[in-house]
Amino acid sequence: MRIEEAEEAIRSLLPEKRFRHSVGVSKTAVKLAKKYGADVEKAGIAGMLHDIAKYFSDADLEAAIRRRADISNDFLEYSDKLWHAPVGAVYAQEKLGIEDREILDAMTYHTTGRQNMNLLEKIIFLADYIEPGRDFPGVDEVREVAAENLDNAVYLELQKTVIHLLEKRQSVYPKTFEAYNDLVKKIQ
Amino acid sequence: MRIEEAEEAIRSLLPEKRFRHSVGVSKTAVKLAKKYGADVEKAGIAGMLHDIAKYFSDADLEAAIRRRADISNDFLEYSDKLWHAPVGAVYAQEKLGIEDREILDAMTYHTTGRQNMNLLEKIIFLADYIEPGRDFPGVDEVREVAAENLDNAVYLELQKTVIHLLEKRQSVYPKTFEAYNDLVKKIQ
Repeated sequence: MRIEEAEEAIRSLLPEKRFRHSVGVSKTAVKLAKKYGADVEKAGIAGMLHDIAKYFSDADLEAAIRRRADISNDFLEYSDKLWHAPVGAVYAQEKLGIEDREILDAMTYHTTGRQNMNLLEKIIFLADYIEPGRDFPGVDEVREVAAENLDNAVYLELQKTVIHLLEKRQSVYPKTFEAYNDLVKKIQ
Repeated sequence: MRIEEAEEAIRSLLPEKRFRHSVGVSKTAVKLAKKYGADVEKAGIAGMLHDIAKYFSDADLEAAIRRRADISNDFLEYSDKLWHAPVGAVYAQEKLGIEDREILDAMTYHTTGRQNMNLLEKIIFLADYIEPGRDFPGVDEVREVAAENLDNAVYLELQKTVIHLLEKRQSVYPKTFEAYNDLVKKIQ
C-alpha cells in the first residue's frame, strides 16, 4: 500500500473534519520520519490510517476487541475513546491486507502509548497530538520540543495528557502510566 | 502494644519535627477511625509508627528490601523516598513484635497506596497527608472532604499527589497509579 491508497481507504469511513485531521497526522508523521530517520512511507501510511475505526459503533469496537485474542480485554474497562486504536489496526490487517508489524503497532498504541515505544510508534503518537489542525493550550510547546528531541516531545505529550485526565477525574489506561514512567527515565 | 508504647518506640529514632508529625498522624488517624468505624487503637499505633524507618540510611533500607521476599524489589527502581514505608513495617514486625497484618499493611502502603486499600490503609494514607502540622496548597480542601467522605478524600489526595509528581517530572510508583484508577471508580 502507498500513502495515496491509505488516503482513499479512509475517505469513505471518516467525516470531513476527521479526514483532514488524518491527512495532517500523515504529513506530520512524514516530516518527523525524515527528521528522526524512520521509514517515511510507513509513517505516512500509519498516520493516515490511525483513526480508521474512530467512527465504528461501540458495539462493533467491543466485538472486535473480544474476538481478537491479541487485544487485551482490559481496554473494555477503560474509556471507549481508546477502543478505536487497536481495532483500527485489526481492520487495517484484515480488510486492507497490511501485515507490517510496525504500522500495526503504531496504530494500536497511538492513543495510549506503552513502555519501550519504537521509533514509528513515537512518531505517530506525537504526530496525532501536534498536527497543524490541533489547537489547545500547550500544543505549541510540544511542537517546539518536537523540532529538537523526539523523546522529550513524547514525554511532554504524556505528561500533559495524564495531567489533563487527572484534572478531569478520569481513569488512565495502565500502559499510558507505563509509557510515562519509561520516558521520565529517558528524557534529558 | 498500646499507642503510648508506640510513641516511646519512635522517640529515639526520629528528630523532633518528624516525631511531632508522627504524633499528629496518630491523633488524626484516631479521629478518622472513630468517624469511619475503624479500630481506634490500631489506627493510633499505625499512625505513630508509619515513619519509624524514615531516618534509616539508604543502604540499610535497600538491604532490608532485598532481604525480605515479601517486599517487591521494584521499589529500588523508584524514588528512595518510598523505601522507608515497607521497611518500617518490617522493623515493626521484627523489632517491636507487631504481627497485626492491618497495622503492617497500613504502614507498608502509607506512601504509595495500592488498589483495594482497606479501611485502615486509607486512614493512615490520608492522616499522613492532612495531620495538623501539614501546610501546603490544597491541604485544607482535602481536610474538608475528609470530614465528609473517606474515599473522596483519598481520591483527592491521590489526584493531587500524582499531578504534583508529574509536574516535577518524577516517576510515579505503579501501585499509586493503580490506587488512583481504583478510587476514580469509587468516588461519588
